[in-house]
Formats: sequence, C-alpha cells, structure tokens
Amino acid sequence: MSKVKVAINGYGTIGKRVADAVTMQDDMEIIGVAKTRPNYEAFVAHDKGYDVYTLADRVDAMTSAGIPAAGTVEDMISKADVVVDCTPGGVGEKNKALYEKAGVKAIWQGGEDHDLAGCSFNAEANYAEALGKDFVRVVSCNTTGLCRVIYPLDQEYGVKKVRVTLMRRAADPNDIKTGPINAIVPNPIKLPSHHGPDVKSVIPHINITSTAVKLPTTLMHLHTLNIELEKECTADDVKAIFAKQPRVRMVGQGITSTAEVMELGKDLGRPRGDMWENCVWEDSVTMYEGELYFFQAIHQESDVIPENVDAIRAMMELESDGAKSVAKTNKAMGL
Amino acid sequence: MSKVKVAINGYGTIGKRVADAVTMQDDMEIIGVAKTRPNYEAFVAHDKGYDVYTLADRVDAMTSAGIPAAGTVEDMISKADVVVDCTPGGVGEKNKALYEKAGVKAIWQGGEDHDLAGCSFNAEANYAEALGKDFVRVVSCNTTGLCRVIYPLDQEYGVKKVRVTLMRRAADPNDIKTGPINAIVPNPIKLPSHHGPDVKSVIPHINITSTAVKLPTTLMHLHTLNIELEKECTADDVKAIFAKQPRVRMVGQGITSTAEVMELGKDLGRPRGDMWENCVWEDSVTMYEGELYFFQAIHQESDVIPENVDAIRAMMELESDGAKSVAKTNKAMGL
Amino acid sequence: MSKVKVAINGYGTIGKRVADAVTMQDDMEIIGVAKTRPNYEAFVAHDKGYDVYTLADRVDAMTSAGIPAAGTVEDMISKADVVVDCTPGGVGEKNKALYEKAGVKAIWQGGEDHDLAGCSFNAEANYAEALGKDFVRVVSCNTTGLCRVIYPLDQEYGVKKVRVTLMRRAADPNDIKTGPINAIVPNPIKLPSHHGPDVKSVIPHINITSTAVKLPTTLMHLHTLNIELEKECTADDVKAIFAKQPRVRMVGQGITSTAEVMELGKDLGRPRGDMWENCVWEDSVTMYEGELYFFQAIHQESDVIPENVDAIRAMMELESDGAKSVAKTNKAMGL
Amino acid sequence: MSKVKVAINGYGTIGKRVADAVTMQDDMEIIGVAKTRPNYEAFVAHDKGYDVYTLADRVDAMTSAGIPAAGTVEDMISKADVVVDCTPGGVGEKNKALYEKAGVKAIWQGGEDHDLAGCSFNAEANYAEALGKDFVRVVSCNTTGLCRVIYPLDQEYGVKKVRVTLMRRAADPNDIKTGPINAIVPNPIKLPSHHGPDVKSVIPHINITSTAVKLPTTLMHLHTLNIELEKECTADDVKAIFAKQPRVRMVGQGITSTAEVMELGKDLGRPRGDMWENCVWEDSVTMYEGELYFFQAIHQESDVIPENVDAIRAMMELESDGAKSVAKTNKAMGL
Ligand SMILES: NC(=O)c1ccc[n+]([C@@H]2O[C@H](COP(=O)([O-])OP(=O)(O)OC[C@H]3O[C@@H](n4cnc5c(N)ncnc54)[C@H](O)[C@@H]3O)[C@@H](O)[C@H]2O)c1
Ligand SMILES: NC(=O)c1ccc[n+]([C@@H]2O[C@H](COP(=O)([O-])OP(=O)(O)OC[C@H]3O[C@@H](n4cnc5c(N)ncnc54)[C@H](O)[C@@H]3O)[C@@H](O)[C@H]2O)c1
Ligand SMILES: NC(=O)c1ccc[n+]([C@@H]2O[C@H](COP(=O)([O-])OP(=O)(O)OC[C@H]3O[C@@H](n4cnc5c(N)ncnc54)[C@H](O)[C@@H]3O)[C@@H](O)[C@H]2O)c1
Ligand SMILES: NC(=O)c1ccc[n+]([C@@H]2O[C@H](COP(=O)([O-])OP(=O)(O)OC[C@H]3O[C@@H](n4cnc5c(N)ncnc54)[C@H](O)[C@@H]3O)[C@@H](O)[C@H]2O)c1
Repeated sequence: MSKVKVAINGYGTIGKRVADAVTMQDDMEIIGVAKTRPNYEAFVAHDKGYDVYTLADRVDAMTSAGIPAAGTVEDMISKADVVVDCTPGGVGEKNKALYEKAGVKAIWQGGEDHDLAGCSFNAEANYAEALGKDFVRVVSCNTTGLCRVIYPLDQEYGVKKVRVTLMRRAADPNDIKTGPINAIVPNPIKLPSHHGPDVKSVIPHINITSTAVKLPTTLMHLHTLNIELEKECTADDVKAIFAKQPRVRMVGQGITSTAEVMELGKDLGRPRGDMWENCVWEDSVTMYEGELYFFQAIHQESDVIPENVDAIRAMMELESDGAKSVAKTNKAMGL
Repeated sequence: MSKVKVAINGYGTIGKRVADAVTMQDDMEIIGVAKTRPNYEAFVAHDKGYDVYTLADRVDAMTSAGIPAAGTVEDMISKADVVVDCTPGGVGEKNKALYEKAGVKAIWQGGEDHDLAGCSFNAEANYAEALGKDFVRVVSCNTTGLCRVIYPLDQEYGVKKVRVTLMRRAADPNDIKTGPINAIVPNPIKLPSHHGPDVKSVIPHINITSTAVKLPTTLMHLHTLNIELEKECTADDVKAIFAKQPRVRMVGQGITSTAEVMELGKDLGRPRGDMWENCVWEDSVTMYEGELYFFQAIHQESDVIPENVDAIRAMMELESDGAKSVAKTNKAMGL
Repeated sequence: MSKVKVAINGYGTIGKRVADAVTMQDDMEIIGVAKTRPNYEAFVAHDKGYDVYTLADRVDAMTSAGIPAAGTVEDMISKADVVVDCTPGGVGEKNKALYEKAGVKAIWQGGEDHDLAGCSFNAEANYAEALGKDFVRVVSCNTTGLCRVIYPLDQEYGVKKVRVTLMRRAADPNDIKTGPINAIVPNPIKLPSHHGPDVKSVIPHINITSTAVKLPTTLMHLHTLNIELEKECTADDVKAIFAKQPRVRMVGQGITSTAEVMELGKDLGRPRGDMWENCVWEDSVTMYEGELYFFQAIHQESDVIPENVDAIRAMMELESDGAKSVAKTNKAMGL
Repeated sequence: MSKVKVAINGYGTIGKRVADAVTMQDDMEIIGVAKTRPNYEAFVAHDKGYDVYTLADRVDAMTSAGIPAAGTVEDMISKADVVVDCTPGGVGEKNKALYEKAGVKAIWQGGEDHDLAGCSFNAEANYAEALGKDFVRVVSCNTTGLCRVIYPLDQEYGVKKVRVTLMRRAADPNDIKTGPINAIVPNPIKLPSHHGPDVKSVIPHINITSTAVKLPTTLMHLHTLNIELEKECTADDVKAIFAKQPRVRMVGQGITSTAEVMELGKDLGRPRGDMWENCVWEDSVTMYEGELYFFQAIHQESDVIPENVDAIRAMMELESDGAKSVAKTNKAMGL
C-alpha cells in the first residue's frame, strides 16, 4: 500500500515537528514543506532531505540563497493527499481557497477558528468525528492539554464543572522579539477567557470557565485545574485514570518545575527534547471538599504533534479506531 | 501628647518601608532601626537620620564601616514602646524572648506563624481584635491582599467559597540570588496550598482554597479569584463595594500588566514607587454562572506597610475605631 | 524675570521625566505636554496639573476619555520658547518642520540622528556649543554615560583609545511587548557597533570602538570599559577624577548588581527611584598592563534628564557657564 | 581490544552528557555512574542501562526509591580505568584521595583548580600534554571556548593580546534556584576577572584580560572578543582559519541570538539539542584599526563534552595524535 502523501505548509515551530513525526510513521510520508524565508530552518529542512517549496514570488530568492526550491506552494499542494497548514495563526484561513481549488484535504492548527474547518479534533476525545473529513482543525496546545484530562474523567465520572487558570509561556524559546521580560500579564483581562471554552469545540457538553495570563517564560504552559465531578471518587481513582491515558505522564521524582520537565524530555532522548504528553504532578492530584485539584505542564511546541498524525490517519481513513491510531502514532514516535 | 516610640528590628524590604511610614504619622516616631550588615541600606538609614543599632557582636564592625552604631538591638528595644520585627521569616520567632524580657510590645510579619503572636491582623478586617494586644502578626502580603477584598464582600453578600490561584513573584527586585530565571514553579505541589487558608487566621469562618506558583518576575503577585457568594449580586455591585474600600484601587486606562501598575506607582510620585493598595482590574470583575471572577495585583513589598502602622495604633490604643485609623494612616501616607 | 516656557512633545518614559525636572527649576516652566493616547500616564499628567495637548485628530478622543485636551500639538508649540521632543526614535524627525514653522527652539533625544539638530549635547562635555542654538540633540542614554567618564579623563590624561562593551536592557520596565525573555542578542552583529562612535558627535576626536548586546533585563545598561590613556596615571587618580564629577556616583557598600543600584535610587527617595548619575563600581576601577578598566551602570530612563534641563538653559542663554548650569540643575533636582 | 572502562562520579549536567558521549565511542565504555539522590535523572540513568552507584550511606535509600544501587562510589571506582569526576565545583577536590587510593586515573572539570590535576586540558590546544597522565582537568566551558579560537589564531598569526567580555548565563536551564531574574551582575567586580587568565593554564604564553558578568538567561554564554595579532591578516583570513577548526561553527542564516543557536541544535537532531561547538557569528568577524573583533556563543552544558572524551583517550594513550582523537570523537558523536 502506498503511503499517504503529506505536505507541510508553514515550516516553523509546529510545522517542522509535524514533518518529523509524519516521517516516523509507516503509513504516511512528507512530500514537501513550504517555508517563506531561506533561514537556518530552511537549510536544515533541505539537509534533512525534505523538498523545500516556497511562495511563488520567492522561488528565486530561496534558490539563490542556496536552497534549490522544489517549486511553489501550489506545486506542493498539487502533489499531496493532505496538507498540514502550520502557518501563523490567522494566515491559515487565507489558504483555504487554495486547498479547495486543488481538491486536497487540509488540517489547520489552533490559531484558526473552529468554523474554518468545522471539525475540531483531539485524538483521545473525538477521533471518530474526523473520519473521512476534508477539513479538520487540531485544537491548540492548551485545548489539547485540557481535552486529554477532561475527556477521560468525563467518561468515567461525569464532569460537572471545570475551572482552570492557564499560565501561558509568553513566547516560544526561539522567539526573541516577544516580551514581557519581567511582568505578569493577565490576558485577556475580561473574564472568563476564551481558552477554556475552546474545549467545547471538541467536547460540546463540558461546562468550563478559564482565566489566563502570559508570563516571562518560554518553556511550557502550566494549568491549575479545579474540577467538580458528577460521581464520587478519590484522588487515587483519578490518578489511576490518568495513568491509563496514552498521552498523560505522571511526574514526581524531584521534578518541581517546568524547567525540570523539559530537562526530562532531553534526558529521555526525545527529538528536540520534546514532551508530547501532558505532565501531571502526581502529588498535586487532590480531592478537597469534594472537588478535584491538580497541576499539569503542557509543552506548547509539541503536544499537538501526535494529534496531527492521528488527524491525518482519521481523515484518510487509514484507521477507524482512534485508540489504535493513538497507539500506532505513539509507538512510532517512541512515546 | 508624646509620640509612641517605635523600633524597627530588621531593616530590609519591609523594615525600611515601615520606618518611613511611621515617620509620616503624627502620633508615632522611629527611635531606631536595627540592621545586621553595614551595607548601602544602612548608610542610607544613617543619612536619613535614623539611629542605627545592630547585633551585639557587630557594633564595632558597623562603626568602623562608617556608620556610628547607636547600640545593640537590646539597647534599642529598651527605649521602645513597640518593636516592629521585620527580620527574615523564621528569625522573628527567636526574638520573642527578647521582647518579653524587655516588656515591649511587638509586631511580626507574615513570615512567622499565627501562633507566635496569637493575633493575626488586617486593619480592614479585624482591627478591634488587636486593641491593646502585646503581640500581633501583620499577615503576609498575599493574605493582606485577600482579606481586603474578601472581608467587605463577606460583610455585604456573604462569602460561600473562595478559590484563588496565587501567582507569586519569586524574588523581590533587589534580590539577585533567587531564581527561577525561566520556569514556572508550582509551589507547593501538594494541593491545596497553605496560602489561602491563612486568611482564616484573620477571618476564621471563610471557606477558601488556594493553589500557588512562583514565577520569574520580581514586581508583583497576581491573584485570580473565583468567589461564590451567599446573596445574589452583579459585577457592578461588587465594583461599587471595591470602589469604597480605602486600600483597593480599580485599574484600567491602558494598564494591562503588573509592569504598568508599578509604572503607575512611580508616576503617582509614591515613595519607592510603592503601590500600597490592591489593584483590581475593573474590566476583569465578572459575574459568570453565578460566580464572581476577577484579577488583582499585589505589591508584595508595600501592601502590608499601612497595616503595620494601623497595628501599632491598635496595640497602643491610640485609636479605637479601625476605619478612623485606616483613614488617618492613608492620609498621612498620601494614599 | 519670567520663566522660560517649555513644551514637552511626547510624554512617555523620557518626556514625563523632563517635565518633572523642568518643573523643579526656578528659571523654566512647563506650559504643556503632548500625549497621543488617553492612558493612565495622560491621566496622571492631567492630575499633576500639566496642560495636556494632543494630535489634532485626537482632541475629541482625549476629552471624551475624561482628559480635557488643552488643544493641539500646534497650539502647544505656539506658546512655547522651546519644545523638548520626546517622541519615539524616528518620529521626532518628522516634527522639525513644525518647529521651524512656529519659529520655536527644539531639543531632540538620542533616538534621532545628529544631523537633524546639527548639535549633539552633553552638559559636562560641550555645553558651550549649544549656547543660543535653535536645535540641539541630547545624546542617548548610552552616549551620555560614556561622555561623562571619557570627557574628564581626556581632559586630564588624554584618551588614546576606548573599547567598550555595552550590555543594554532590551526593554524599559513598563514595556511588556519587547523581548527577549531568555536569550542574549548580539546587536548589531556587524562590528564595531555604532554606539560608541556616537560619542564623537559630542567629542569628535575620541577614538572609540564598541560592541553591544541586548539582554533580558529592564533595569539598566551596564558598560565594561577599557581605556588607553596618553599620560600615565593610577586607578586612584582615576577614582579621584570620577569622584569630582557632578554626575558620576561611585558605588560599593554591598551593591553588586544593577538591581541594587536601582534599590539605592529608591532608598535615596529619588522621584520614580531614578538614578540620574553614572554608577561606577569603585572596586572595579583598575589599571592593568597600563590600561584602565571599569564597570558602570547607566539608568537608561533617567540619565539624560538633567542634560535636557541644561540644554534648555544653554539654548536660551540663561547661563553661559556649563559647570554652573550643571550645579544649578543638580541642586534643584536634589542630585 | 577491550574497551577502556570509564566511571562517572557525579551524574548532573556534565556527567550525564559525558556518559552518553563515552557510550558513543568504540574504544571506551561506561561501567557505572554515581548519583547522590534518587531523582528523575537517576531513574533515567537506570532505564538507559547504566549501573547506578551512590554514596555508602545512601545505597539503601537509592534502592528503596526504586533504583537498585549497584554499590558504593568506591565499588565503582575500583572497577574503572578512569573516573570522570563531574561533581559540583569544589567537591571534586575532596575525591582525589579516593582516586589515588584506588590507583585510578581521574579527570576533573573546570570547577576545580588547575593545581589539583597539574594538567589543564583542551584537545585542540594541548592534547599531547595529557598523554599518559594520571590526572587531568578539562578546563571550564568558557576557557574551552576561548582556547578553541585563540590557539589556532596564535599558531597562524601570533596573539599579542586578548581582551574578552564574558557574558555568562547565570544558571543552567534545569536550575530553578539561582537568580538573578532581572538584573545584570558584574562578577567579579574586581577587574580583570580570573576567567580569561585560565586560558594560560592551557596555553601559558597568551596575554589575556577579561571582564565578566552574570545574566538572567539560562541558554548560553556570549563572548565579545578583541584580539591584537602579531602578523597582519584580514577578517577573511580569520574566517578561513575558524572554518577549518573541528569544533568551531560559523553561524549566520538568520541566527541572531543565543536562542536561535539553541534552536539550531534541536533542529540538527543533536542529543538534548546540544551545541558542542563554539558558534562564531560570521558577520561579526571584523578587522578594525588593526584589531580583530567577533562574537561567539558557548553552550556551557556541552562544549566540554567532546573534550572529556579526548582527555580519556590521551590519558589512556589510545591515540597519540590529538587531531586524530578529535576527529574520531567528533565522528562518533555526529559533530
Ligand atoms: N507555537 C506554539 O506554541 C503553538 C502550539 C500549538 C498550536 N500552534 C498553532 O500552530 C500554528 C503555527 O504556529 P507556529 O508557532 O508554528 O508558528 P511559527 O511562526 O513558528 O511558524 C510559522 C511558519 O509559517 C511560515 N509562513 C508564514 N506565512 C506563510 C505563508 N503565507 N505560507 C507559507 N508559510 C508561511 C513562517 O515562515 C514560519 O516558518 C498557529 O496556528 C499556532 O496558533 C502553535
Ligand atoms: N518581601 C516581601 O515581599 C514581604 C512581604 C510581606 C511580608 N514579608 C515578611 O516580612 C519579613 C521580612 O521580610 P523582608 O522581605 O523585609 O526581608 P529582608 O531580607 O529584605 O530584610 C530582613 C532584614 O533583617 C535583617 N536581619 C537578619 N537577621 C537579623 C537579626 N537576627 N536581627 C536583626 N535584623 C536581622 C537583615 O539584615 C535584613 O536587613 C518576613 O517575615 C517576610 O516573610 C515580606
Ligand atoms: N527609554 C529610554 O531608555 C531612552 C533613553 C534615552 C533616550 N531615549 C530617546 O528618547 C526618545 C523618547 O523615547 P521614550 O523611551 O521616552 O519613548 P516612549 O515610547 O516611552 O514615549 C514616547 C511618547 O511619545 C508619544 N508619541 C508618539 N508619537 C507621537 C507624536 N507623533 N506626537 C506626539 N507624541 C507622540 C507616545 O504616546 C509616547 O507617550 C527617543 O528618541 C529615544 O530614543 C530613550
Ligand atoms: N554546568 C556547566 O555549565 C558546566 C560547564 C563546564 C564545567 N562545569 C563543571 O563541571 C562540574 C560539574 O558541574 P555540573 O554543572 O554538572 O553540576 P551539577 O550540579 O549539574 O551535577 C553535579 C552532580 O554531582 C552529584 N554530586 C554531588 N556531590 C557528590 C558527591 N560527593 N559524590 C558524587 N556525586 C555528587 C550531584 O548529585 C549532581 O548530580 C563542576 O566542576 C563545574 O564547574 C559545569
């Protein structure tokens, strides 16, 4: 059986990771990546053997900078079965016409609105919904992290209400333009924030409110969760459920911060030191006055990566069972 | 009437501010400050005209460094009506015997336990409790900030339950030893944290749970509050209550972070740019699904300062009405 | 004698400080400040009693936001003897025509090029050059800091060559947009940088090369200086010269970082905690292998403020002797 | 031929990297690593298959925490040909008696003094000196970075004088205890600093002075170099020399900060995203007024790693030619 042909439009933080994760699978392959500027990331893509495409008016610039452009974005799309759009938030929307014209399936990321794709995706929560779909949005890093813990709890005990405080890294590690350097930024100031409710785009009936801030750190987001459940259960019950989740990792063993979680990612030999799973502090999982509390750290650069692989598999109907796709993806990535 | 004689034991972040605030009042005065090391802070204290005392074995070191020591800590205590102990958390406890022996009243700060003084104090919430007391603990910056908003809401509408996430600056601006530089540190990891419940040392019947983190910022703490009230009310009702509080400031007008709150403190001409009040974002005050949400920024270095002045006044029975003391303190400080 | 009428065009980090410093003098006064947005800074300006002007198309917005606009920027200029332009770097240039048309003298800041004014100013180094001039540029915070130590050394011992590494705070304390959060940014990468040579716009014959970086800190710049002198001298000779400079402060006494220098500014009761002087670490001043080395910290937000006052005095010929103007400014500001 | 048996005493930032680098070689192997606490790093070491040893009084604690201790540090040493001591600076010194007693060769890191080993090592500069030696010190990350550029320049053009400003990351990425969070710390304040002269422990005749600061960043050090050479040459000559160095990488291609250098390390698929080479900004290499200037970034966590491998090879006389060892090490590591 021939592999599904995947194109990456926008080879940045998310795009380069999706490219590498797809390459690790046996049922799909990268046929090209599109990059706007001939910077070091483009050189590395080329050196890795990816065909590098670019915007029509930049083909010459790319080639003359030393990266022989394989063609235009349109050329790349025409060869693909599915395009993973990893352009910056808001840009992806403008590419929809392109994908429709080429009759190619497309995945967008969390920077786009639900309505663009009509189907918001998290492999653990609603894989089946994406089966055969032409357009899918893999939800944001924060929403992905929330779905992975809320969905199984809801299945088992029923989720009555979620209150979450999202402490967001203000910039990715390689972004030197964005601040703050020394401040806490409540964002948005109007409450509740839109972040939590984005979970409803995947699991509509969840009652969730969120507050969010931006912080002078680059490594990970941290979530403080407070959950009221329908049925009674203990902290140990919750830990047992989390322990069974394929993309939740319980942390402890002297790990006391997002910095040490990232160190663990490096120690484990993960590519780029990525931490694809939610990292829940085992000692934080507490049932207090009948409500569940816990902390989890979310690696914004990578938690959505395996989800993109699963989304491709669902859309191309390579696998009809979500749990099997998740297991296959995880195994291929070494998770 | 002669002024109440106040000594400051421990002239650091809190101590130097209490000294200056006491000096601004007409019913109390500083008779000396105790400092362990002859650093720039000691020189400035001396230049300002404060008598500088030190530990018995450091008198010579202080004097030979260029700051003529006025005597030992014991000498200082013997001249005072009340000592404000602003030594580092945990050190203050060891000084209790000293104060008892000298028969002097003493105030400790939030770094000490409630039991040390037996009376935990917040001027707005329980001024009367401290009247005539020998020992009082002015609660921590975070607890002070919480009491100021919880108490009046409780008075007016009854507080059923408070859930708060405390995002703490990891180090004061002049502390260059303490990290993290680039991480979020859930602290404590075991939930709920002890911070919120410290409110009960002032207002015992409040039902409150808290989670806390330490962040790579030096400026202020930020609190995310979720409050369930007994009686129904609107966001506007809550804003109206906050607007009446003498030590709560509503912020807006383009202020979007703790950095801009601190800039406002400087713009207002406050000594050291201090922001003595809770700063509540007006636009954040929201009633959602019957629960109250808002953000407030707390200037850890200074919010407890006017409280210390009021505590002195209560303990010395200079004023029996808390509201009058608060008004007098605020007016003298220019708040 | 009536006071010189000063207008501030651009009421931000520099503008608000110049306004307050001018107000402290007995020979000049603020007749208005211009601000583009009705944010908290504008409210404070209004509350302080400054007449707030704005761009012609924003007069209504300002007024309806609650700050009665006193008129347009043009209105303000027409009433002034001298305008201090403190708009963002590059914007000031566009205002030149406005000032010429109104026949008003103008001062620009270091964000503009030397050629715009034709006269680059540092009170200690070339006050006389600005006497009676219509247009003057007060050089940048870094150049001001360099002139203050290079000029007197050159006068006394002759400066053969200066090599300086400028470690720049990447953003001002109230700027939450600008990064980096966790990186060192060599900037510019091409060497030597343009920063050092800007000293020549004030003292043309100085031989200076510089390298510069941007850092994840908001407080101060730090300069590492290496200077070859014509005549022999000792570290003590250099310290003696620095000690005599009206805007150089020798620091020690446990001050080990820019954070503690800023704490000192607050302890001294300076408005906004500003540190108008260069802060040279006394212990760092060293003569090694015939070359001078030392560290100095420069408070980017405030070191140019007294220079602006002196520039007004020179341009208006209120005082012909630079040293006398410096002394007068310093005294009025409490430096 | 049997492989050289290497033990790692102190499995932290440096130790774990040396362990992995040794494992990649075909002429040496890890026979055990010693770790004091059973934290996540110890678990990963165990999972990777390393025998984990510990202090005599912690064997039980290690085992009961879930990591079956292979024995005591002494047990480990007795099985080794060479111990790489990667304990914290100052601790290594105390281990010398242990190594002497066991008659085992030992390597220390840059945190120890030159005199402890008597031989300070950098593979490119003085490999031959370490041949057959019992004790060797691999110099610090900064000194290693300096030797790699100074030595070849000295060989080719003669180095007359080096002036360097070392901008040091204040803490490693996984260290959340150490600050500063928002300050520049000149350190040491007395000039010149001891850092530069440490180069003389490897290349004694080099004339070098240095100044150093600590910065609120965790990623890399940055060096600003100013070098006077004996013979005339151009910037292109220097670039050509650097391009030939096996552990110097020229960077450009949109890389403008230490953050992007670290991103490149991840993009290249390096273990832990490490950047073992000096990264010299090609565009910064400049000859100005007869003096050389350039910027280089040094990855403190990893630049000494290949040097440790070479030191083992020299001490065990596995290879007498330094260049060949460097090439062999680099190839095995994928550098
Ligand atoms: N970075 C994160 O933490 C994160 C996490 C989850 C989801 N996302 C979402 O993923 C998407 C991508 O974000 P990112 O962080 O990878 O952005 P990024 O800025 O790192 O990468 C975007 C890439 O797209 C390229 N690009 C820009 N315009 C383009 C165009 N018109 N055509 C093709 N390529 C173009 C850029 O050159 C860049 O390489 C966004 O929707 C974002 O919201 C980001
Ligand atoms: N800094 C804050 O944000 C903050 C806020 C609210 C409450 N507090 C509490 O206030 C207290 C003081 O904290 P701080 O931040 O001002 O500490 P600090 O470290 O800034 O100052 C403590 C001072 O005490 C001196 N000192 C130390 N040992 C002493 C001794 N044995 N006798 C006399 N003086 C001694 C030190 O030299 C220093 O000047 C603590 O209980 C702390 O928890 C601090
Ligand atoms: N901030 C520093 O560290 C520093 C130090 C020395 C010199 N400077 C120089 O001083 C100048 C001002 O810098 P700043 O840091 O105060 O900037 P800022 O951004 O803090 O303030 C600029 C102000 O100008 C206003 N403004 C913008 N456009 C305007 C216009 N067209 N007309 C009138 N007002 C306008 C803005 O609203 C703002 O209030 C620049 O040339 C800068 O290079 C800055
Ligand atoms: N981290 C760097 O940037 C860097 C760079 C170059 C050189 N060095 C040098 O390398 C050495 C190690 O530094 P590091 O950063 O890896 O330190 P580290 O703190 O990361 O690791 C030290 C390890 O030694 C262990 N340890 C402590 N005491 C011990 C003992 N008595 N016996 C056995 N193990 C013990 C600790 O548990 C820890 O695992 C120091 O000399 C340091 O100066 C560090």
